[in-house]
Formats: sequence, structure tokens, C-alpha cells
Amino acid sequence: MKPTRRASYELFYWPMIQGRGEFVRLALEDAGAPYVDVAREPDGMKRMMALMKDAGGGLAPFAPPFLRTGKLLVAQTANILAIVAPALGLVGKSEGARAYAHQVQLTIMDLVVEAHDTHHPLGGSLYYEDQKPESKQRSAGFVKERIPKHLGWLERALAASGGPYLFGRKASYVDLSAFQVVAGLDYAFPRAMKRMTRSIRRLRALSERVAERPRTAAYLASSRRIPFNEHGIFRRYPELDEA
Amino acid sequence: MKPTRRASYELFYWPMIQGRGEFVRLALEDAGAPYVDVAREPDGMKRMMALMKDAGGGLAPFAPPFLRTGKLLVAQTANILAIVAPALGLVGKSEGARAYAHQVQLTIMDLVVEAHDTHHPLGGSLYYEDQKPESKQRSAGFVKERIPKHLGWLERALAASGGPYLFGRKASYVDLSAFQVVAGLDYAFPRAMKRMTRSIRRLRALSERVAERPRTAAYLASSRRIPFNEHGIFRRYPELDEA
Repeated sequence: MKPTRRASYELFYWPMIQGRGEFVRLALEDAGAPYVDVAREPDGMKRMMALMKDAGGGLAPFAPPFLRTGKLLVAQTANILAIVAPALGLVGKSEGARAYAHQVQLTIMDLVVEAHDTHHPLGGSLYYEDQKPESKQRSAGFVKERIPKHLGWLERALAASGGPYLFGRKASYVDLSAFQVVAGLDYAFPRAMKRMTRSIRRLRALSERVAERPRTAAYLASSRRIPFNEHGIFRRYPELDEA
Repeated sequence: MKPTRRASYELFYWPMIQGRGEFVRLALEDAGAPYVDVAREPDGMKRMMALMKDAGGGLAPFAPPFLRTGKLLVAQTANILAIVAPALGLVGKSEGARAYAHQVQLTIMDLVVEAHDTHHPLGGSLYYEDQKPESKQRSAGFVKERIPKHLGWLERALAASGGPYLFGRKASYVDLSAFQVVAGLDYAFPRAMKRMTRSIRRLRALSERVAERPRTAAYLASSRRIPFNEHGIFRRYPELDEA
């Protein structure tokens, strides 16, 4: 099925955090797409939990976020984005362009998993407070090796495309995700990110440009943008940042 | 670009492990596709490392596996599979079928990350031997909560499709990946997996059926199938398995 610009979208995601849902919110907002953030509506959490138990015949999603548009119910952040981006005008039309964008998005999602694991290295069944020393160790390697490797790769992507966006002159959903991951890392690891700023100049410029896109700027200034907090993926625990 | 059945594929992946490359190998083997496992050829590692440094104008892949077919150079395991599966006859043709298959594949890949992190909870920059107590803690939660949650979801997918395959009567690349992840977990956590066997009967039946598919059976019996070992994702460290 091909959603059209007039289609409406129902996003299902935890209502108190940016989390993975934010990558989808940013795409819908930037495109000015009509959507409902279901779990933030009255009774919305109930609807989301019901769909996770029983998707009506088909397989219920493994986890939020998931999106309903027309008859399609689709999960997995990068998959949702790959499916809606053509109708939102946020990716090139050729199969090659879409595959390349998806490849970069999946690599960003890998970084997101690693960012989460800095405060949950022993797993999600324990509180952060119960895995603080391990979080420090994991974060040290993350800050020293993984952030530079990932952001350095995005920096090279910008150099290869000629910019200002990751795939050239036109913004894509992957640029919005790159902005989000930089914003998240700035929130969680402000000292480390400040030190690295010079080596990611193109990525910094990209982030600023994304934040100034009119609809995205309006979204970021609105109450729809949930502030970063210590329940999400990117958490400000100063003890995990570099000294 | 649309690869045809006659197209040849060059797979680039670490030559000593199954790892993420194995999900691609299984699809190519099951389809009888002509491919070269480049890094296992003489001078192949050199070629792979060169491509990671300089992909000839475009962005070099972040990490193996990556695949070259025609003019396309594509990375990220699930992305590679989504792109080649239609030509290999290993996924339904509709956009909906492809999106649904990709969603399940991405969820399997999430499980693969978690399986890897059981022996590297503090990160890849330390040896397993330097993070053994933490690996035990992470593995306990993985075995108790995460394996059942993930495999239980695949079991429900099989119930929803009616089987014998995840999407019904026809095998897809996702079935091959499900086989691989069950095989890997059997290798790494034999005791835990034996205990769970009854609750994943459909998935067990699927795995056996996949292993008996003629080309896959021939592959599994060949020297092209690298044995599981303690350098890959799924490692047999008895101390991490349940008692």
C-alpha cells in the first residue's frame, strides 16, 4: 500500500519519553503529516497495549514504536521510516536511494542501542542504580571509541555527498535522525561532545540546519516535543560523561 | 537496480566466523545464487579492507557484512537481505509482504545484538575474560527474559501464519534467519534452550524443516559453513548458560 500525503497516521509509542518513537515523530512533523500520537491521547495507552496483545489476526508488534496507516500496521523504527518516507517526500525515489538511506538509518539505530546500553550494560531488568560501576565502564568505551567512530562515519557521509544534507541538497528522514542522535548525545554526554565538536563540523552544521527547518523548529518549540529525561535512551548522568 | 537470478553476488564478511554474514550466506545458499565469499578467497581480506577505506566515491560501509551486486554496494545485514530477497525468491512480492518480513528480520537482528552482548556487556573494547562476572549477570537476564520473549514472539508469528513457515506455506529469508538464531542459541545456551523446547514447538519444527531444505542441507554439511566458535556472536561459555 502507498500512503498518500493526505493519509493520516497513528503513531503508537510510550508517551513519556522521546525514545525510538522520536525518530518517527520528527519525520511526521517535518513533513507536516497529519498524525495522532495515540498513547498521549485519553485512553491511548489502553489502545496501544491492546494492539500489542492482539493486532486483529496478524502478528502483534514486538515492541513500540509502531505505526498504523490505512490497512498497514508496521513496527521497527527504521522500517516505519523507510515505508512512510517516500509519501512524506523525505527520501529519494529510486530503489538505490532508498536502500542507501535505509543503510545509514540502520547504522544510526545501532548507535542508539549502544547509547541505551551505556546506562544498562547488564540489561533492562535491572535499574541503572544497580549497575552504575558497569555503566561507567561501558560509557568510557562508548565515549572514547564508539561515538567518534559513528559520528565520524556520518561526517564522511556528508563529505561524500557534498552536503548540506547526508544525501546532498535535499533533506531526508535520515538527516532528521542524525539531528536527533546528535541532540541526544549532547544531552547525555555534553563534555565529551563539546570536545569532539571540531571533528564533526559538517554534522554540527547539519544539525543546526535541521533544527531551523520551519516545521521542525515549530515542533521543537512546542509541547509535543517531550524533553529529554532520565527514562529515555539518552540520559544525563554526569558520572558517565568524560571528566 | 534489480538483481536478476543470473546476477552474481560478492559478499564481504569476516572469514573466520558465521557472525552477521551468515544470515546473508544462508539466503544466497538456499537460493542457489552464484556468489563469492570474498574475504575467504586469496587476497580477499585485502580487498574487503580496501573497500571499507574507500568505496570509490560513495560512502564506505560502516562495517561488514556488505554485498556488491551490479553497481550496488549495500551494507547492514537486514538491508542486504531485504534488497536481494525478491530476486532470490525468498520473500513475497507485495510491498506489505516485504515490509512485514523486514520487520520480523529487524527484530531477529535485535536479538542477535543482545546475544552478542551476553559476552560483551561492557563493550567490544575489552576481552570476554575481562568482563566475566558482568557477562554472567547479563546472561542471566537474557536467558530468563529475553530469549523467551523473542522466541515466544516468533512462535506466535508461526501460529498466526498457520505455518510451517513464518509467513505461511512458502519459505522466506526470515525463516532462514530464524533457523540460524535458534542454532546459535542452541550452541551458546544448550541447557536453557533444552528447557524451553516445549514452549517453542513450532519454531523447532521450522528449524528442522529449514535444515532439511536440499540446498541448505548441502551447505550446512559443506566446508563453506564455518563452525560456531568463540570468536563469533554465539559463543559456548558454559558458565553463561543456566545451571
